[in-house]
Order: sequence, then structure tokens, then C-alpha cells
Amino acid sequence: MGEDKYKLIYFNVMARAEPIRLIFAAAGVQYEDYRLEGDNWDTEKTNYPWGKLPVLEINGEVLAESTAICRYLASKFSLVGSTDLEAAKCDEYVDAIMDCRSHWRSYYWESDAAKKEELKNILLNVQVPFYYSKFEKIVEASKGDYLLGTNYTWADLHIAHTVSFIDKTVKPGLLDDYPKLKKFSETVFNIPKVKAWIEKRPKTER
Amino acid sequence: MGEDKYKLIYFNVMARAEPIRLIFAAAGVQYEDYRLEGDNWDTEKTNYPWGKLPVLEINGEVLAESTAICRYLASKFSLVGSTDLEAAKCDEYVDAIMDCRSHWRSYYWESDAAKKEELKNILLNVQVPFYYSKFEKIVEASKGDYLLGTNYTWADLHIAHTVSFIDKTVKPGLLDDYPKLKKFSETVFNIPKVKAWIEKRPKTER
Repeated sequence: MGEDKYKLIYFNVMARAEPIRLIFAAAGVQYEDYRLEGDNWDTEKTNYPWGKLPVLEINGEVLAESTAICRYLASKFSLVGSTDLEAAKCDEYVDAIMDCRSHWRSYYWESDAAKKEELKNILLNVQVPFYYSKFEKIVEASKGDYLLGTNYTWADLHIAHTVSFIDKTVKPGLLDDYPKLKKFSETVFNIPKVKAWIEKRPKTER
Repeated sequence: MGEDKYKLIYFNVMARAEPIRLIFAAAGVQYEDYRLEGDNWDTEKTNYPWGKLPVLEINGEVLAESTAICRYLASKFSLVGSTDLEAAKCDEYVDAIMDCRSHWRSYYWESDAAKKEELKNILLNVQVPFYYSKFEKIVEASKGDYLLGTNYTWADLHIAHTVSFIDKTVKPGLLDDYPKLKKFSETVFNIPKVKAWIEKRPKTER
């Protein structure tokens, strides 16, 4: 494992790459955090398997799709729980937060101002309450600080990041209505190696 | 493994559950294929973790999110390739076809006729050609009949099904423009246990 050479290619934002960077940080594994400048993206994107970033190069082999990259690394770094079912629960929780995030994306990238306002209202009044209240209950039911109990997994890193990211990019303070989820998120960000990364990472708007 | 008791809960359609059923079929593993009638769905959906189906009960424990269910079973039934990177490539390919499927879903469930026609045109002229031509190349580059070579994985079952499903529900004959992908799909459907399931499964519109 220590000999694998990783290059993560993305833009200079958190967005879809940050869960990957958090997994590297938590595991204490070195990688090249390559951040493309966007000017030539329309021509450059044909260089990547699905015309999208992030991609991860692993000893020169290319893996695409952000969630697939997260899971691959989490498995390598023993961050997938301790049973097959725990690994599957990680997948379920991440897919659920990504379902929520897909609504965020529709809102965030909408260019028509009136439509954007409408999507924001639905996001804040329907979709966020639906998903966040479920995660609030999952955190409450846990026997430890994390979603699956006393040990953290990549799902904790991913979900703590994603809810904070939505908070930051839509309505700061949003998490105040979900005190257990907020506290969970803070606990994850206080894992020492995670905290060290968050303190030193490039500061970006999203 | 033989002692695990599985109950798959979904509606009486293929849609998101069929990749799961194909994995069970290929592995020759018994399960209860429970098909809800939809009349009371609005009240019943609160019984499920994310208000959605499918869910899989495994010895009474509940796992949600269709792709998480697929991966869990595929891992149990040794349908994830033979290395960590092959397992990750399965994930990448499935996420890519699900990205394509998300466009299908926007089209399929659109209620406004003019908007639906517009979405259909984009699906057929932009999104399907983009993804299918990439899969056409992946199949062409393979050293065997399947995406990763000579042995099939759950990604083969999933992608063969999904492209056929889009063909069936949008424009039958669509796959004729992608002869290698079409042949790949037929090869998957001719795996004897898969073929037997397809012949006997309930015939549904989608």
C-alpha cells in the first residue's frame, strides 16, 4: 500500500473531490493533489474517461467517478467498517446523501434567477429536511460518535463534509436545526488528521 | 451464504430492482421477490429508510439504495472481479451508466408533453451517444466478452440490462447504432442462468 502512487485530478474547489481528499487525510497517505485551472476545460475534458473530474491515477491506471474513487481508497485504507453489511451501509448512506446533493446541484447550477429561487426553496423546505432528519435519527441511534458506532468510516467523512458543504453554499447555519448531525459533523472534523487537513487545505468558495 | 435469507421489496416492474434480480439469478441464489402493488405507496413509503424502493432484507436487516444492494450481493457472490481495482472499475462503470440513466429518468417522468419531447431529443442525440459510444469502446478494448475481460461481473449484468431497458422504454432499436454494445448485451443475456431468469420473469412495461 505504501508504495502505491496516487494522483488526484480535479479543479481548485472542494465539491466532488473533497471526500476523497478527506479519506487520504484520515489515512495519512500521500498523494498528488493536482488542481486544474478551468480555462481550457472544454478541450481538456475529452482526455478523461467520462469527460468529468475527479479522476484518480493509481500507479498510472485511471479510475473515474468520485464515489467509486472514495470506496476504492476507503477499502484500501480500512475505512469501510468491519463486516460486509457495514461496508454496504456505508454505501447506502453515501448514496442517500448524494441523492440529496443532486438536488443541491440542480439548485446551485441553475442560471435562471426565478427558477433558482424556487429550487432553493424546495431544497431548504423539502429535500434537506427529509434527508437531514433521517441522518439526525441515524446519528441518534448510533452506539458511538459515528454513523456505524465507535469507529469512523469513509461514510462519516463523506457525509460530515457534504452537509457542511451544503450549509456553506446555500444557507450558513442550516445545520443548527439538526443539532445531533451538526455535532456529529464537528466530531468528524476534529479527528486529528482530518482537522490538520482542514486547517491547511486551500480555502475555496465551494 | 446458503443460509442467508433474502427478501427483495420493490414494485412489479424491472426498473431499479432488475439488476439486483439478475445478480441473484446469475449466482443461483434463492430470495423472495416481493412485488408491492402501488395503491397505498404514499402511506407505505414511510416504512422504508429513505422513502424509496428497492430495499433488501438480509436475515431481517434492512439495506437500501439499489446500487448499494447490488454491490453487497455481488461481493457476497464473487461477482466483483478479482482485484480491488477491478471491483472499483465495476463501480465506475455502474456509476457512469447510472449517470446516463438519470437523464432517462428526467425524460421518462416528465409530465409536460413539450418538455418531454425536448428531453427525449437531448437524451437520444446527446446523452445516449456520449455514454454508449464510450461503452462501445470499452467493450471493443476488452480481451474477452465482458467489460473487464473473460469473466462477467455485476457491472456486466447491470449495464447490459440498463442499455436494454433504455432501448425498450425510449426507442426500440436504439442499440443497433452500437453493434458491439448490442452484442455484449446479448452475450450477457445468454449466460444460462441469466437467460433462464429472463425467460421466466414477469413481463412488465418497464
